[in-house]
Amino acid sequence: MGVPALGLDALASSAYGPEAALTILMPLGAIGPARLHWVMGPILLLLAILYVSYRQTIRAYPMDGGGYAVSRENLGTLAALLAAAALMIDYILNVAVGIAAGVGAMTSALPALHPYTLRLSLAILALLTMANLRGTGEASRLWALPTYLFAASFLALLGIGVYRTLVAGGHPQPIVPPPPLQPAGEALGLWLLLRSFASGCTAMTGVEAVSNSVGAFRQPVVKEAHRALTAIVAILGMLLAGIIYVAQAYAIGATDQTKPGYQSVLSQLAGAVAGHGAFYYVAMGSLLCVLCLSANTSFTGFPRLCHRIAQDGFLPRPFAAAGHRLVYSVGIFYLALTAGFLLAIFGGITDRLIPLFAIGAFLTFTLSQAGMVMHWRRLLREQGGGRRMAHRLRLAINAVGAAATSIALGIIIVAKFTEGAWITLVAIPCTILLLLSIRNYYDELAARLREDGALDLRQRKPPIVLVAMDGWNRLTDKALAFALLLSPDVAAVHLTAMDGPDADENIETLRRQWQEEVARPATAAGFPPPKLLLLQAPFRRVDGPLLKLVKTLHGEHPDRLVAVLIPEVVKRRWWEHLLHTHRARRLRAALLHYGGSGSVVINIPWYLDEPAIEEALEPAMLQAAGSKPTRRLEP
Amino acid sequence: MGVPALGLDALASSAYGPEAALTILMPLGAIGPARLHWVMGPILLLLAILYVSYRQTIRAYPMDGGGYAVSRENLGTLAALLAAAALMIDYILNVAVGIAAGVGAMTSALPALHPYTLRLSLAILALLTMANLRGTGEASRLWALPTYLFAASFLALLGIGVYRTLVAGGHPQPIVPPPPLQPAGEALGLWLLLRSFASGCTAMTGVEAVSNSVGAFRQPVVKEAHRALTAIVAILGMLLAGIIYVAQAYAIGATDQTKPGYQSVLSQLAGAVAGHGAFYYVAMGSLLCVLCLSANTSFTGFPRLCHRIAQDGFLPRPFAAAGHRLVYSVGIFYLALTAGFLLAIFGGITDRLIPLFAIGAFLTFTLSQAGMVMHWRRLLREQGGGRRMAHRLRLAINAVGAAATSIALGIIIVAKFTEGAWITLVAIPCTILLLLSIRNYYDELAARLREDGALDLRQRKPPIVLVAMDGWNRLTDKALAFALLLSPDVAAVHLTAMDGPDADENIETLRRQWQEEVARPATAAGFPPPKLLLLQAPFRRVDGPLLKLVKTLHGEHPDRLVAVLIPEVVKRRWWEHLLHTHRARRLRAALLHYGGSGSVVINIPWYLDEPAIEEALEPAMLQAAGSKPTRRLEP
Repeated sequence: MGVPALGLDALASSAYGPEAALTILMPLGAIGPARLHWVMGPILLLLAILYVSYRQTIRAYPMDGGGYAVSRENLGTLAALLAAAALMIDYILNVAVGIAAGVGAMTSALPALHPYTLRLSLAILALLTMANLRGTGEASRLWALPTYLFAASFLALLGIGVYRTLVAGGHPQPIVPPPPLQPAGEALGLWLLLRSFASGCTAMTGVEAVSNSVGAFRQPVVKEAHRALTAIVAILGMLLAGIIYVAQAYAIGATDQTKPGYQSVLSQLAGAVAGHGAFYYVAMGSLLCVLCLSANTSFTGFPRLCHRIAQDGFLPRPFAAAGHRLVYSVGIFYLALTAGFLLAIFGGITDRLIPLFAIGAFLTFTLSQAGMVMHWRRLLREQGGGRRMAHRLRLAINAVGAAATSIALGIIIVAKFTEGAWITLVAIPCTILLLLSIRNYYDELAARLREDGALDLRQRKPPIVLVAMDGWNRLTDKALAFALLLSPDVAAVHLTAMDGPDADENIETLRRQWQEEVARPATAAGFPPPKLLLLQAPFRRVDGPLLKLVKTLHGEHPDRLVAVLIPEVVKRRWWEHLLHTHRARRLRAALLHYGGSGSVVINIPWYLDEPAIEEALEPAMLQAAGSKPTRRLEP
Repeated sequence: MGVPALGLDALASSAYGPEAALTILMPLGAIGPARLHWVMGPILLLLAILYVSYRQTIRAYPMDGGGYAVSRENLGTLAALLAAAALMIDYILNVAVGIAAGVGAMTSALPALHPYTLRLSLAILALLTMANLRGTGEASRLWALPTYLFAASFLALLGIGVYRTLVAGGHPQPIVPPPPLQPAGEALGLWLLLRSFASGCTAMTGVEAVSNSVGAFRQPVVKEAHRALTAIVAILGMLLAGIIYVAQAYAIGATDQTKPGYQSVLSQLAGAVAGHGAFYYVAMGSLLCVLCLSANTSFTGFPRLCHRIAQDGFLPRPFAAAGHRLVYSVGIFYLALTAGFLLAIFGGITDRLIPLFAIGAFLTFTLSQAGMVMHWRRLLREQGGGRRMAHRLRLAINAVGAAATSIALGIIIVAKFTEGAWITLVAIPCTILLLLSIRNYYDELAARLREDGALDLRQRKPPIVLVAMDGWNRLTDKALAFALLLSPDVAAVHLTAMDGPDADENIETLRRQWQEEVARPATAAGFPPPKLLLLQAPFRRVDGPLLKLVKTLHGEHPDRLVAVLIPEVVKRRWWEHLLHTHRARRLRAALLHYGGSGSVVINIPWYLDEPAIEEALEPAMLQAAGSKPTRRLEP
């Protein structure tokens, strides 16, 4: 059941892993394919070790057995961040490599497309990005089809190839002969084999997918997940073994993707075994689909990882909340940009991306296995009795896994350093630094916000209240009435620049009006009369003079808050925004930004048409709210 | 002095006015140029009438004698809006026609450029737009040079042409013969002459520029403006008369700008008189500059007009304030877009734009003259004595002007209706409608805002205060302390969705904390203890449930305000915005938008680093503020 969705990534690796190993063996000429099993044999062994190890991880972490979670629980924060950085980089490279290999399959089948390699890669990336931004939804059910088609057609091809080889006594006649191998230019050496092994290790990327998603299986989850993992590893193993055997039999080597006439290994193999008939095109078509879909898995996996990391405070907090939508779109954009950048830099050539790729995967493998070792050690310490033997065995298995993957990782780093691995090795600490500094910001913020004592009620003087106004009108009336409830010290601040020929007359009118319409009725009602202040606003910028006034008041009354009331005509139609000066918004922003902690900003809304709260509520929310919101009253 | 800046527009008209008249006469063949004076004679007469009329306008309105201002003062709002709409459309067409004619001059001199007519037009428009967005500043001083060069070279050319004609006894030999006239295909008729007259009237556009800018002259303004107007009209008259005479002598007709081999009339004339030497290219180069610069005058005139109209409330109020910068950039964009649209639609062909153009100009002339008639009538009514005779004379002059321009306007409308004038005739009422509805909005707003009575203090109950919180921390502490100063009815609303496995435990912790840290100290200090409300937020959208609660409270207490306190961590560095959820901002926006007039929003800022108010103030403002702001305290 989970094979298509979770196996995609692993099975797709069979398309580029063996080819990557063969590419390094190219200088050996005909010796290359003949010695492929020297390189791929250890990789199959590693795969078997990983299989046994991951079975244990699935059993131990049936909720979330991803490298980040396992490392975080068992190895501490730094190892978890190392895993996080490795995984994040891995997701990006998985996109780039999957698409590059897919385009390689396409240009093998249709050589006329070869000059458009990079453009095709970027076009597929753009398609995937758009599809994911729109949301793939039900479409993902259709993914099973190409996966099954791919596995079935290539297993059949390899079966036929093995049969023909056995019948022909080791050297069958290819139907379409593969391109001739280049003449040997180098002798077989350990360094070459190690480099080939390091490249071939990419064949194992994606094996960890099942352990990340155990929770998605039906009950009993562990058993179902084990079955899926077994099926995936078995198919992958058969594919890899078959490719090694058939490639050797037909003397199929790698060709250079940068040159015209490029034929991917699987394309040569399908041509040699089955010729360039309908079967060939079906097989290559399904391969293209599987590679693109394996790139697509990053588009769901990466945001999920970011969400998980954000929950621990190492990525921006909006990613952890916001119902996933934000993290998905940001994640999709980020993936698309970085993968597109990598594709563009490396010309869409798979072989150039391979050195960057394997590091992340093997770093995660190693950390995950090491985490499992610590897990069993803890259990051994904590639990006694009859299960100790079993735990010891499991510890040993994961220790072997950790050792094997860490050795492989070492080989990859050394063998691939100058070929591009250094890029990943530089990117990982930078990513960790970023994650740590984000967490540091949140920690500092939380420390500053933490209230250790009880409610602080020493501030008991009423605030000094300023009312922003630009004339005697209903806005000012409403704001002043509220201001008088707050404090006996109220001043209205007139902010319109009064200049021009009628300035003095206007000021006189305003004063008279103030005396009659405001000061007198306020006094009559028992309130201290509000003051009227006229502020000169140079350059028509009213926020500057008001901020100056607030600062002066803070200086004169350091023990009191200054509350600025901003009455505001609320704009509720789009065109109304074009017709107003947005002074209220600018004043509020300036005061909140620069007013200091002794300031408070009070918005008094005023409406041309009274709004209905229902307008703000989405239909779904109205229903949900209709079902009586939980409201508990305390104390 | 003012001749280059204010004369540009009028002098540039000589490049397309006579050509437009000749274009209509094309079907007459050789008869066309020979009868040009039948058409241009009345236009020169009109020019003389306008000159005398505008002298009077300048004297009567030495501050702002533009068509909009004169109409507004003398003819009422609707006529002023008619003038405003006509002027606005005129500014746009001035850009399009100036550029199209300039490109016509360019392709006449360099025929290889003819296929790129439209692209050249749009490129020049883009250049002008960018230059104006950046601000032309000191560069405008350089404009005098091409203007003088243009006037000097073409007056010299025409002088030589007249001299050669007289010497040759009427039919001089052209140095470069103009393209042959097309054979006569139509007889001379009144309708053709009227259409030609209507097109030729575009030669007078821009004459009003001096009257718009009298205030910019040095003292004595009226005298200086009169001198500039005299100089401009004299040069324009000489140019037009010269063009008529020389075109007739050399049998120069219009050619079709849409076809290759197009030669503008001035290019033919310069070639015939002076040949295609250096002098020709200097003259055509200065012509190109003058035409582009005349298009450029719209980029300063249009925003100035919008500013003036906005002061009367017929355009968005931000245009009237905001120190001109906003109106300039919006105006420049609007001009560029509409002029570019017109150029694209009409393929950059001058002749197709001419029918739209003259209407606006002559409508403004007529309204301005009619306004002046009303002005003198009012003065005649108000004043008695010795000046009555002078006023009567002036009234008569302006009445003649108004009659002449209105007759010309009638001819233009009738003769050009189907050729494109209908577009202007549709655009004008649409513009007026837009202006009126903007003013209507402001009037309604002012009526609703007007406070007829005194300060309304009936609302004396303290508000119900809600404090938005997501935990017990310093933010909540500060907000609660302020809330308790405002009202005895305070409730803290906990907005974080509490679900997941630890929900009940977390709620219990919060309750206990509330009891100990908030309720007890509040009671001890003599305040009623604040309540704690837990709001369930479905879909993590917290604004919906809070709005529902506000609505419920409004329903239960219709006589009290509901104040919502939103404590907020103020983000002061750009990257901090990436790290926060902006819930405070979203809550504030939702409450202000939908809360209704019974709600008040109080922002309590909280800072990681205390800000300094000085950061908000620009250096210039600090200086200005240093010079003691006018602050008057009342009462």
